[in-house]
Amino acid sequence: MPRVDRRAEVSWNGNLARGEGRISAPSGAFAGLPYSAATRVAARAETTSPEELLAAAHAGCFAMSLAGELREAEARIDVTANVVLDEVDGQGHRIVESQLEVRARAPGLEQAAFDEAVEAADRGCPFSRLIAAAAKVTINATLED
Amino acid sequence: MPRVDRRAEVSWNGNLARGEGRISAPSGAFAGLPYSAATRVAARAETTSPEELLAAAHAGCFAMSLAGELREAEARIDVTANVVLDEVDGQGHRIVESQLEVRARAPGLEQAAFDEAVEAADRGCPFSRLIAAAAKVTINATLED
Repeated sequence: MPRVDRRAEVSWNGNLARGEGRISAPSGAFAGLPYSAATRVAARAETTSPEELLAAAHAGCFAMSLAGELREAEARIDVTANVVLDEVDGQGHRIVESQLEVRARAPGLEQAAFDEAVEAADRGCPFSRLIAAAAKVTINATLED
Repeated sequence: MPRVDRRAEVSWNGNLARGEGRISAPSGAFAGLPYSAATRVAARAETTSPEELLAAAHAGCFAMSLAGELREAEARIDVTANVVLDEVDGQGHRIVESQLEVRARAPGLEQAAFDEAVEAADRGCPFSRLIAAAAKVTINATLED
């Protein structure tokens, strides 16, 4: 895989308490997603947050990484990521954890091979490695029938 | 700000080469965003990637952090983030950099105060801190009239 550059744009209007931002991707995959200080703390329908976007990135990266390890043409992989932002003594707010819940179906795959694939996917996923440098990555993986 | 949990979900079908995934947020802010190995490398219209989502998260976090430092009710802040994924010797692919381009308007704000605010925003933004633990964060900030 060659070097990849990906870009996104944000416009923020106003101060922290009353202002709001809009998040867009030049690709057109999403445009004008609203967020604010209030909705970053208390999730509100149809609004996003940096933490939600990181959860999407980590889940997406891990699912693709696991697909690469399983090599099964008929694999089905479901990943949920839960990203935690919390106050850390003396540092202010930090991303402290990303918790992955993984469920996979892959006809004929043995449990031991699945467990190895999950470990390899975590080692290989650039987002697991990025997050693990500063926070905790936990993975709970289930092989389904 | 209390502890914040934010979640996203991904479903992947198939292997790495031919499969594809869909990325959704329970908030409803985005749903079924498509991505694949091919579109992660070569951006295609209407498809996203983990790197694009991280760029969105970092730009969103930084813009909000800077709004908090500026404290200006009439501030307008535009942030573009460019996230770089590249091969690192002996480690495979890693997130190696996030480059921020920041433009701000804030009536009456002096350049020196703006420069200090940008530095403080970088120190305080949880995504700058997360990324800087494993990769490079660069900021090019301009105060506009």
